[in-house]
Amino acid sequence: MVSFVNDYSEGCHPDILRRLAETNLEQAPGYGSDRFTASAREKIRAAAGCPEADVFFLSGGTQTNATVIASLLRPYEGVIAAATGHIAVHEAGAVEYTGHKVITLPQRDGKFSPADLRTALAAFHADPSHAHMAAPGMVYLSFPTEYGTLYTLDELRAIRAVCDTYGLPLYVDGARLGYGLASAACEIDLPGLAALCDVFYIGGTKVGALCGEAVVFPRGNAPEGFFTSIKQHGALLAKGRLTALQFDVLFTDGLYFRLGENGVRRAMQVRDLFRAHGYEMYLDSPTNQQFVVLDAAQKERISRHAAFDTWENLPDGRTVVRFATSWATTQEQVDSLAEALRG
Amino acid sequence: MVSFVNDYSEGCHPDILRRLAETNLEQAPGYGSDRFTASAREKIRAAAGCPEADVFFLSGGTQTNATVIASLLRPYEGVIAAATGHIAVHEAGAVEYTGHKVITLPQRDGKFSPADLRTALAAFHADPSHAHMAAPGMVYLSFPTEYGTLYTLDELRAIRAVCDTYGLPLYVDGARLGYGLASAACEIDLPGLAALCDVFYIGGTKVGALCGEAVVFPRGNAPEGFFTSIKQHGALLAKGRLTALQFDVLFTDGLYFRLGENGVRRAMQVRDLFRAHGYEMYLDSPTNQQFVVLDAAQKERISRHAAFDTWENLPDGRTVVRFATSWATTQEQVDSLAEALRG
Amino acid sequence: MVSFVNDYSEGCHPDILRRLAETNLEQAPGYGSDRFTASAREKIRAAAGCPEADVFFLSGGTQTNATVIASLLRPYEGVIAAATGHIAVHEAGAVEYTGHKVITLPQRDGKFSPADLRTALAAFHADPSHAHMAAPGMVYLSFPTEYGTLYTLDELRAIRAVCDTYGLPLYVDGARLGYGLASAACEIDLPGLAALCDVFYIGGTKVGALCGEAVVFPRGNAPEGFFTSIKQHGALLAKGRLTALQFDVLFTDGLYFRLGENGVRRAMQVRDLFRAHGYEMYLDSPTNQQFVVLDAAQKERISRHAAFDTWENLPDGRTVVRFATSWATTQEQVDSLAEALRG
Amino acid sequence: MVSFVNDYSEGCHPDILRRLAETNLEQAPGYGSDRFTASAREKIRAAAGCPEADVFFLSGGTQTNATVIASLLRPYEGVIAAATGHIAVHEAGAVEYTGHKVITLPQRDGKFSPADLRTALAAFHADPSHAHMAAPGMVYLSFPTEYGTLYTLDELRAIRAVCDTYGLPLYVDGARLGYGLASAACEIDLPGLAALCDVFYIGGTKVGALCGEAVVFPRGNAPEGFFTSIKQHGALLAKGRLTALQFDVLFTDGLYFRLGENGVRRAMQVRDLFRAHGYEMYLDSPTNQQFVVLDAAQKERISRHAAFDTWENLPDGRTVVRFATSWATTQEQVDSLAEALRG
Repeated sequence: MVSFVNDYSEGCHPDILRRLAETNLEQAPGYGSDRFTASAREKIRAAAGCPEADVFFLSGGTQTNATVIASLLRPYEGVIAAATGHIAVHEAGAVEYTGHKVITLPQRDGKFSPADLRTALAAFHADPSHAHMAAPGMVYLSFPTEYGTLYTLDELRAIRAVCDTYGLPLYVDGARLGYGLASAACEIDLPGLAALCDVFYIGGTKVGALCGEAVVFPRGNAPEGFFTSIKQHGALLAKGRLTALQFDVLFTDGLYFRLGENGVRRAMQVRDLFRAHGYEMYLDSPTNQQFVVLDAAQKERISRHAAFDTWENLPDGRTVVRFATSWATTQEQVDSLAEALRG
Repeated sequence: MVSFVNDYSEGCHPDILRRLAETNLEQAPGYGSDRFTASAREKIRAAAGCPEADVFFLSGGTQTNATVIASLLRPYEGVIAAATGHIAVHEAGAVEYTGHKVITLPQRDGKFSPADLRTALAAFHADPSHAHMAAPGMVYLSFPTEYGTLYTLDELRAIRAVCDTYGLPLYVDGARLGYGLASAACEIDLPGLAALCDVFYIGGTKVGALCGEAVVFPRGNAPEGFFTSIKQHGALLAKGRLTALQFDVLFTDGLYFRLGENGVRRAMQVRDLFRAHGYEMYLDSPTNQQFVVLDAAQKERISRHAAFDTWENLPDGRTVVRFATSWATTQEQVDSLAEALRG
Repeated sequence: MVSFVNDYSEGCHPDILRRLAETNLEQAPGYGSDRFTASAREKIRAAAGCPEADVFFLSGGTQTNATVIASLLRPYEGVIAAATGHIAVHEAGAVEYTGHKVITLPQRDGKFSPADLRTALAAFHADPSHAHMAAPGMVYLSFPTEYGTLYTLDELRAIRAVCDTYGLPLYVDGARLGYGLASAACEIDLPGLAALCDVFYIGGTKVGALCGEAVVFPRGNAPEGFFTSIKQHGALLAKGRLTALQFDVLFTDGLYFRLGENGVRRAMQVRDLFRAHGYEMYLDSPTNQQFVVLDAAQKERISRHAAFDTWENLPDGRTVVRFATSWATTQEQVDSLAEALRG
Repeated sequence: MVSFVNDYSEGCHPDILRRLAETNLEQAPGYGSDRFTASAREKIRAAAGCPEADVFFLSGGTQTNATVIASLLRPYEGVIAAATGHIAVHEAGAVEYTGHKVITLPQRDGKFSPADLRTALAAFHADPSHAHMAAPGMVYLSFPTEYGTLYTLDELRAIRAVCDTYGLPLYVDGARLGYGLASAACEIDLPGLAALCDVFYIGGTKVGALCGEAVVFPRGNAPEGFFTSIKQHGALLAKGRLTALQFDVLFTDGLYFRLGENGVRRAMQVRDLFRAHGYEMYLDSPTNQQFVVLDAAQKERISRHAAFDTWENLPDGRTVVRFATSWATTQEQVDSLAEALRG
């Protein structure tokens, strides 16, 4: 049975394993002072058009979010996110565990609006008792969002403008960045994103790596002691080569972008299949996650042939399910889904 | 100018000062091992009908909430509260600072509904990814709420039933408990409340004391090491006599309840005054906080004679303001407000 | 029986109760925006010779230490203290609870030496793996120390110089500051102390107040959002008047200093008594805490007449006990001890 | 130049890469619900003789320590460790960051003594003010220690007995467990260790894996919600297969133990080489870390041929350096060091 349950079902791009094998017995210093880290850092700086960037490699997304957020906030500050933001829902309270509130904004299709952001900040500062409240200290957004959607360039600029008004850093969670940048609907490229935000991370785990996320402070603006913070959060691998080498491979000859393209191309095929068979898409996602509304019979029938993830139950009894494609999804897998839908 | 800004504008009931003076130079051991603490503890046990209760005296509400909540939750758990709950809004992220998420429920007039609580818990446990989420570990409610409203007995019982279904402790924030119990709309008494919940606190600061809140674990069910937790939170006064003696006075001859009654009686006068002059009450509060909707002209005019607190701005441009009475509010103060409304 | 158990056995200086009574029903705004706070702040600024100082009133010492320390450290930093420092031993891990390590230095009579401080910092920075260690981010010292001793002016200057070398703020815990400043052995006055450190607190609880400590940032150098941090730590009293008024009285006509003098004078009498009777003093304390070495028989005999605190057991089976005097200790109490020693 | 800087200089055992490649495109569920995890768990249960064990795979040692310790302690408790324990020194305050004090005991050659442990706990409980102190809530030891030494069986049993007296869980940090178990000086085997402690971890990162540590609760005694705690600490890899498959390979046909043996055999050769050339060993380590005392000339000369780690400076001006061997150290590398020492 073919699985569209998520975008981390397979191992990694074979080039990574090949390179791991080639360099396996080479002795390298630990904790990111190795040549793989230096090389991967340079390639990411080049790809993101920010030669001064501070780049760090961490092993997973939740720890990346917690480490970045806790390093940038003052103790009494919170981070603003969409109500469906990954940090607000699916990280087991990891941000709160570092002592900080996640301040949520209303979301639509996984995005908060620049207007709601501005309103919330204006209201906070106008509130006579705001000194008794957790202060908004940074803005977090996912690109793509947890619903596969993308902020438009206008939205990103407007969010940036609000951040500037209030002196807040903007942090972009790019767990699935490769699929965002590869989407036809994407209005920004990697250098554009780097220029727009204060810190972002390039997701490896979901875009072809075994593990690893690359945190980028585009203007060399990592907070003092960030390396020690990574260690303190338990996010520092002794064998820094493991994550770095993977990014080195992914950012060689544009592999990362091609992997993103595969994921999106397969997703568009999946979407078209569902539409062609008259299924209702829950929302319009231009990236690798597709959300379909199924009734019980449909759900039961498809689940005999393909695995997917259950997202939420609708009041009318139907279910929103997610089909995720990835860098590894093949034409055969899509064809097999097509057959299931036909059958 | 008379102030209805809050219920902590004055010092304390004069009996407290008198008793402080009488006992001032008596030597007493520190940290709650004094005779005042023993006496106050017994009086509270008697008043709450729970002779086995563990009773502790802390100096303020925010620290009380943080200490109780952090002591009862496992590290990965959060506390459920109404979106307007004090811990969710006005404690500067103190609960998150201890590492725990505040999980909010929709509110109406400051209360969450038992049905919403049950739905949220059922949804959490039905969610296939709930092990990736902060787990609901206790339920918090304010009695009265931040909007002066009271849960009915049916609501309290229904909330208790949900807590029992899910094995969650129920914690009642009684910062203004005296005003709740004294209300004609209150359907529960102190022993009833003690029997219903797992831990609650009796607010002193807002009901006649200079400072101090009494935490009660009705069935001797304080978590192990709670005393040390109080110390760790910086909530342990060296001169435990200060808070204990105040509660000893407040729980002598029913003073606490009479102070609550004064606050409520004055509030009802205030409410009647506004209604008589055709003002719109924002909601129906049966306790010492009254919320009135004012337009700009009204607000400006009344504020020349009486101080009040601004609560929130309505979309139509009008403002919700709060008039709080207290144990100390006098007939003269109400009369002076009456004059302001007439003038 | 007379008690020398600690310096917080009595209530407060009678002038405080008198003033509380006089102002009791005056309406005042909450959370430190009242006139008592403004007045006390000015008096402290004047007494400490720092007209630009930020001054805050908190209710207890542990919460003061946790709030100040957590507000000044970066997340990965720790605070340096003597191994016997109050934060290192007797605050139930309150500093660690805020996420920060207490880095201890060897102590002698309650003090660390400037040389040990410098050595530790030099060693830290010379250690090739120091980025894997909690970084020293501030220096904490108690004045007087937990053993009643005082750093000399030379020591204080040398510590300051080390702090300057390493860019570390210096924080002085003045829980018993009044007894330090009143000692004949004290080589610094309050303005001198204020000029020397970056933040200190003036202890009220142990020097004549019912509760309360005054945090002073002498050069208006409170960190941004410190008020909100106080709230977040549960250290903000709604009735800010309670702590402020006490400091207002204590800093009127030099009362605070006179209370300190009484404590020290009585302590010197106690010390002389013990010496005259041939008892061994554990160390030479010039302030209000006197440590005496007693064998079992002596301990038993004295404890029939006077209460004291047991400090530590010596390898030879004898016990170090503490006799604390205070602002409230009377000649009669000392005489009664004298009798006990004679008897 | 050959490196003996640490035991994580190389990638991983080639069998791991081979198995990763073989299974690379197999679709597997995330977060540890895959078949690799199930298989590795069973093999570890079998090797440790604890069929009921809860086994979890985390990506690194610091996060493992923080997650285990924070999950087992109550909020006001601390963890006891040797002063040189990894959690006490080289984890950037990660344990304190979770809110808990590391309570240190004197160490000798990296070990604390059972007698010191018992004395410290007896003193704590005898201290009349112990409720004002962070309570010892568990005992942590490294096996082997940070100095390569091993607790004897008598010591381990005595430590266990103290833990039983005081009701404390015993946690064994096995970052280098493979080198400990393979040592001729080791008096315990894996089932023996599992029977003796309440939780331990089997280090992968330093014994042949790219990353990963296996936490074992031998009697199915993982605390409730431990999976969510792992997620909350950012220690949960989406591709759980990565760590699990590595342990599956390591625990197939005793590979883990053979890798440990290689490390120890090479270390003994290194030790013998130094001794044969008249160098002073800093202490007697029977495992893969060898500590040698070098004067400046020796240090300079050897460092031209071999890399090693600088450990500490001795008062006499000489330096303690560490030569670490590992699963990957070859006879050629040892020979090359021999040549350097001869040269």
